[in-house]
Amino acid sequence: MCVYERMKELGIKLPKPPVPMGVYFPAKQFGEKFIYVSGQGPVVNGNALYKGKVGKELSLEDGQKAAYACMLNILGILEEKIKDLNKVKSVVKILGFVASAEDFFDQPKVINAASQLLVDIFGEDIGKASRSAVGTNVLPGNIPVEIEALFEIE
Amino acid sequence: MCVYERMKELGIKLPKPPVPMGVYFPAKQFGEKFIYVSGQGPVVNGNALYKGKVGKELSLEDGQKAAYACMLNILGILEEKIKDLNKVKSVVKILGFVASAEDFFDQPKVINAASQLLVDIFGEDIGKASRSAVGTNVLPGNIPVEIEALFEIE
Amino acid sequence: MCVYERMKELGIKLPKPPVPMGVYFPAKQFGEKFIYVSGQGPVVNGNALYKGKVGKELSLEDGQKAAYACMLNILGILEEKIKDLNKVKSVVKILGFVASAEDFFDQPKVINAASQLLVDIFGEDIGKASRSAVGTNVLPGNIPVEIEALFEIE
Repeated sequence: MCVYERMKELGIKLPKPPVPMGVYFPAKQFGEKFIYVSGQGPVVNGNALYKGKVGKELSLEDGQKAAYACMLNILGILEEKIKDLNKVKSVVKILGFVASAEDFFDQPKVINAASQLLVDIFGEDIGKASRSAVGTNVLPGNIPVEIEALFEIE
Repeated sequence: MCVYERMKELGIKLPKPPVPMGVYFPAKQFGEKFIYVSGQGPVVNGNALYKGKVGKELSLEDGQKAAYACMLNILGILEEKIKDLNKVKSVVKILGFVASAEDFFDQPKVINAASQLLVDIFGEDIGKASRSAVGTNVLPGNIPVEIEALFEIE
Repeated sequence: MCVYERMKELGIKLPKPPVPMGVYFPAKQFGEKFIYVSGQGPVVNGNALYKGKVGKELSLEDGQKAAYACMLNILGILEEKIKDLNKVKSVVKILGFVASAEDFFDQPKVINAASQLLVDIFGEDIGKASRSAVGTNVLPGNIPVEIEALFEIE
């Protein structure tokens, strides 16, 4: 099934890609068929949906919603870059940082919300990626989650 | 010399690959000859060998043993994926996160234990990788070390 | 224009590549045309130019100077590896870690100093990379910034 039909069924609408917050490209293609999408936060129309640390100011559920919003931004950027998300051959790797309270240990559950979105849209074989999920003390603009992604395209 | 002869000489036995702690593949192959192995902790049979931060609850030596255990898991996953570790052409890159006390600055010494294992098994040219080793305030499940790795295979 | 003419105009002189602080190669080539340069700190002649966290012991400006020094080291290593920086086809991706006070949220501005150096030397198309910039509580040797980079060469 076409990626866009799945997205329609799931009620997923990609956001306008966020403006870079510094000297970088939102995405860069290399080796012809690989694309790195720069680290994205849960930013909508220039504003962070959530601020603070998961396990402190924010709950696990907040963190998951933030991770989901990060991945929507990644997909919005990717679509702008390659025009058609059906060209995605594989979501190769995602790296997720979660601004975390010292006693918050569920970073994988936070990032799962982003990973699940990929599986829902692209299916298991293509959408499920290799992954690292780690904590950190602080992220840019006090966002709770930042995710980057490596894609292979056809 | 064959990788498995070296491992036998060194008394290294690969663990059963750990079950993923979330929505990701333990490893994903891309561009035909590259494989990303997802971030691994010092987990054996589902239990973390060590918990806490290096320089606080844990010593440098504990951290090194944890890093070594992370790399064993990476190699166990890689073997399950490619069946024969002699196919490894290069350990390209490793990224190591060390949950660290504020005044612990020896992250490279921690990750060295994982890097040295690769050199011991694969030899310097193949096994020595490019690398980043960084600190962080907290990792999933309160593990002290998480390492991901990029391999090139033949 | 030749990369070295640009560097001369800008008064940029590459440093002698730093000695690795552990069991890793400063850079590793893979897939023929890709090179990962290992995480570099603001180290000159074996000494850290800056120590501490940005937003605590160090100002934003200190952090930017540190990020610039990290990138000079990366370029020094890359030149030693490929001999001629004109071979750089693309700076694909940089990942920057900023040791940060809990209330310092300007990691992208810190890493911009490294990213801008790449744009100045290689021009926008080649030098501007995809990027993630994140905070952390502590880095090796108490350095404030560590940056790794992925290059594509011709």
